[in-house]
Amino acid sequence: MSASRFSPEVEAAIREVRAEVARLHAELVRYGLVVWTGGNVSGRVPGADLFVIKPSGVSYDEITPENLVLCELDGTVVPGTPGSERNPSSDTAAHAYVYRHMPEVGGVVHTHSSYAVAWAARGEEIPCVITGMADEFGGPVPVGPFAIIGDDSIGRGIVETLRGHRSRAVLMQNHGPFTIGVTAKDAVKAAVLLEDVARSVHLAREAGPLIPIPQDDIDRLYARYQNVYGQAEDDRR
Amino acid sequence: MSASRFSPEVEAAIREVRAEVARLHAELVRYGLVVWTGGNVSGRVPGADLFVIKPSGVSYDEITPENLVLCELDGTVVPGTPGSERNPSSDTAAHAYVYRHMPEVGGVVHTHSSYAVAWAARGEEIPCVITGMADEFGGPVPVGPFAIIGDDSIGRGIVETLRGHRSRAVLMQNHGPFTIGVTAKDAVKAAVLLEDVARSVHLAREAGPLIPIPQDDIDRLYARYQNVYGQAEDDRR
Amino acid sequence: MSASRFSPEVEAAIREVRAEVARLHAELVRYGLVVWTGGNVSGRVPGADLFVIKPSGVSYDEITPENLVLCELDGTVVPGTPGSERNPSSDTAAHAYVYRHMPEVGGVVHTHSSYAVAWAARGEEIPCVITGMADEFGGPVPVGPFAIIGDDSIGRGIVETLRGHRSRAVLMQNHGPFTIGVTAKDAVKAAVLLEDVARSVHLAREAGPLIPIPQDDIDRLYARYQNVYGQAEDDRR
Amino acid sequence: MSASRFSPEVEAAIREVRAEVARLHAELVRYGLVVWTGGNVSGRVPGADLFVIKPSGVSYDEITPENLVLCELDGTVVPGTPGSERNPSSDTAAHAYVYRHMPEVGGVVHTHSSYAVAWAARGEEIPCVITGMADEFGGPVPVGPFAIIGDDSIGRGIVETLRGHRSRAVLMQNHGPFTIGVTAKDAVKAAVLLEDVARSVHLAREAGPLIPIPQDDIDRLYARYQNVYGQAEDDRR
Repeated sequence: MSASRFSPEVEAAIREVRAEVARLHAELVRYGLVVWTGGNVSGRVPGADLFVIKPSGVSYDEITPENLVLCELDGTVVPGTPGSERNPSSDTAAHAYVYRHMPEVGGVVHTHSSYAVAWAARGEEIPCVITGMADEFGGPVPVGPFAIIGDDSIGRGIVETLRGHRSRAVLMQNHGPFTIGVTAKDAVKAAVLLEDVARSVHLAREAGPLIPIPQDDIDRLYARYQNVYGQAEDDRR
Repeated sequence: MSASRFSPEVEAAIREVRAEVARLHAELVRYGLVVWTGGNVSGRVPGADLFVIKPSGVSYDEITPENLVLCELDGTVVPGTPGSERNPSSDTAAHAYVYRHMPEVGGVVHTHSSYAVAWAARGEEIPCVITGMADEFGGPVPVGPFAIIGDDSIGRGIVETLRGHRSRAVLMQNHGPFTIGVTAKDAVKAAVLLEDVARSVHLAREAGPLIPIPQDDIDRLYARYQNVYGQAEDDRR
Repeated sequence: MSASRFSPEVEAAIREVRAEVARLHAELVRYGLVVWTGGNVSGRVPGADLFVIKPSGVSYDEITPENLVLCELDGTVVPGTPGSERNPSSDTAAHAYVYRHMPEVGGVVHTHSSYAVAWAARGEEIPCVITGMADEFGGPVPVGPFAIIGDDSIGRGIVETLRGHRSRAVLMQNHGPFTIGVTAKDAVKAAVLLEDVARSVHLAREAGPLIPIPQDDIDRLYARYQNVYGQAEDDRR
Repeated sequence: MSASRFSPEVEAAIREVRAEVARLHAELVRYGLVVWTGGNVSGRVPGADLFVIKPSGVSYDEITPENLVLCELDGTVVPGTPGSERNPSSDTAAHAYVYRHMPEVGGVVHTHSSYAVAWAARGEEIPCVITGMADEFGGPVPVGPFAIIGDDSIGRGIVETLRGHRSRAVLMQNHGPFTIGVTAKDAVKAAVLLEDVARSVHLAREAGPLIPIPQDDIDRLYARYQNVYGQAEDDRR
């Protein structure tokens, strides 16, 4: 067995994040947010400048903790680690950019879930007309700029849209949703709830005018949900 | 083993309601009415001023009879009982209000099912244009007032809308559906059928004008269904 | 063991139809055509004036060959047979009417599948704009009259609409679809394909004008499909 | 055991294609692209003028490597081989035409997936407004001519539309989608992603005007995806 380049603590943290990120990819499938190999989850390794991400073009059935790819925060693969013989997700640069510029973020998710993509293809934010949306996103879900793969422009678009924003979800124009969270699980939760509200508000508006929620009530709902929902050790922390 | 504060009969009833309410949460998942930890079922304990409800922020996979929370009818958790170390659902106050003010109600369900939420976001009742809806709801499904979490206003809105109404379902404006029943299973059935009619009528109206059902026929269908459908021991009693 | 009132041949046929009709109810669930206890399949017993049908208000999980109900062609339950302690489906009179008046029919299915119900709530036939619909239904799927439960009017509406018609499916106005077939399996196939075309044509028309298929081509497709599709012993015979 | 008419190498290749094509039919079911027995996958046998295709009218549950039908490139069944007692898919002539005229094609898929059929029933191409669609199809998904079964007109329509086109998918007017690929798996991937974009763009356009993607960006995305996505041995080769 070769000597690890990481401390035992960091090795343990990597193992835990690998297991969690592998498990969370199955949630994308369960909630119908992805087809074939599209979509990806990453998780930051606590206490290290590292994150774990889906390999490119690999089917969800085949994802294991060991074939996930460990990356530095500049998006380069850590050589000699499990999964390092594979290419990381083609969205790795965007995830890396978010981790570099938003230290509070512990997880990033990208999907092509249908209703969220539909709003993104029109470049239209999702208005906040459901109390559950006020709870979770604190207002409308914003649109990010049109940006194509190849440089930092997707990552920059995500960060510029979400930094200082209540929403943990952004609809990248003509592309699809990215969500962030304090953990990878929290980012997956945001992706699941985003598609849910994208669908409900789409359906609502198809059939007639929506009733807005007064801003005061949105503010109250958001404040309450951040503080009292769930158990002491709930699924965000 | 510590002495129970309840009689053996009530203890047995609590055990039965815990098992049933745990099982019924799986039906919400099976019928696609909930995502993540949203939505909740509660059941009144027959012969006692108690009800059993989902803990807050707990995933459906993890629900067991033992981690459900036992509450008094004022919504406070019964200390020292299984699950009492957890917070009950954030909708507990609304469930409790219904149990206090509608003694005939044995179960309450809340979901964010997509089509029902869509009608709720427009504050629009679902017209009764399907015979199955006349059977089950006896007419249109009504809208309840806009009310936010924090006091009794959600519970009051449910009770004021459903008391004396044929419908076992209410669409709380900008929020989503609550359903009631003589048992928890009956309330879950109402939640399942509500989403079904919310979808069918949404789809129908998208494509052109609906044909109304004459009120006399609605009345006849509703009367018949309450009396003769199902087996002697059917799934409502 | 009590002596059967039927010959061994008829007893064997009853057993076979019970097994097949029980199995076919699971197909309604698999294809999402029913929720809760709604919907039902029946099958005629070859060589006897009998049919087997779902009991009323029983969940799909609990259906077994033995709790299906054996009925005479006037809809009365055959006493002393397995399942005879239960009420048959509340749609039994309609099934019975079809068996009495259409001797070529070996199976009947009723569902509340969402898209088919949507066309039924508008009382609008489904136009034949897909070649697969020409294959299977030979043209548009017709609408039957508004009729409510309680006498023969539903059965009569089905028979008057489908007798001499190519379509094995009818959309009963404000109610939902009934399908018929030479066997129960064939009727279930018609119910599955009906919902499929009801959805596809609904979606197509939402987004713009449909291209009609020339009548000659519909005729040619229908004629071919009735004769050459499938294996010698295919799933219709 | 009778002597095979094929070399051991070809026999081995046939076995491999049978196993793969059987497995891939389950993907059509998993992604909801087919109901009942509709839809079919075929795969070319490398190194031989042969392909393997679904038998007609056989349910997806019953498909095994051995009951798939081995055909010559003119669509005739190879006698004396496993499955040769069955009729091949009624779409066999169309698949055969594609294999004869597009030597680069290793797999063909036909489904009646709902959203793709909806575009086909209007004879309308799917505009390229999602970056994932630019990646995969390189632009809009084109419409092929109206053609009915019975001669080479479906096959000819597919080939005339897709030859020299970036798209691996064609919407045959009033019929449904056919997709091609370098392998059967690649063609199934195209069928899955086609339905995904057909749905997303349908939903997007229902709710307002779409934002087009500049042609330059479409070109860049397509070029990149063909070259760098996935692993060295990714799922297209």
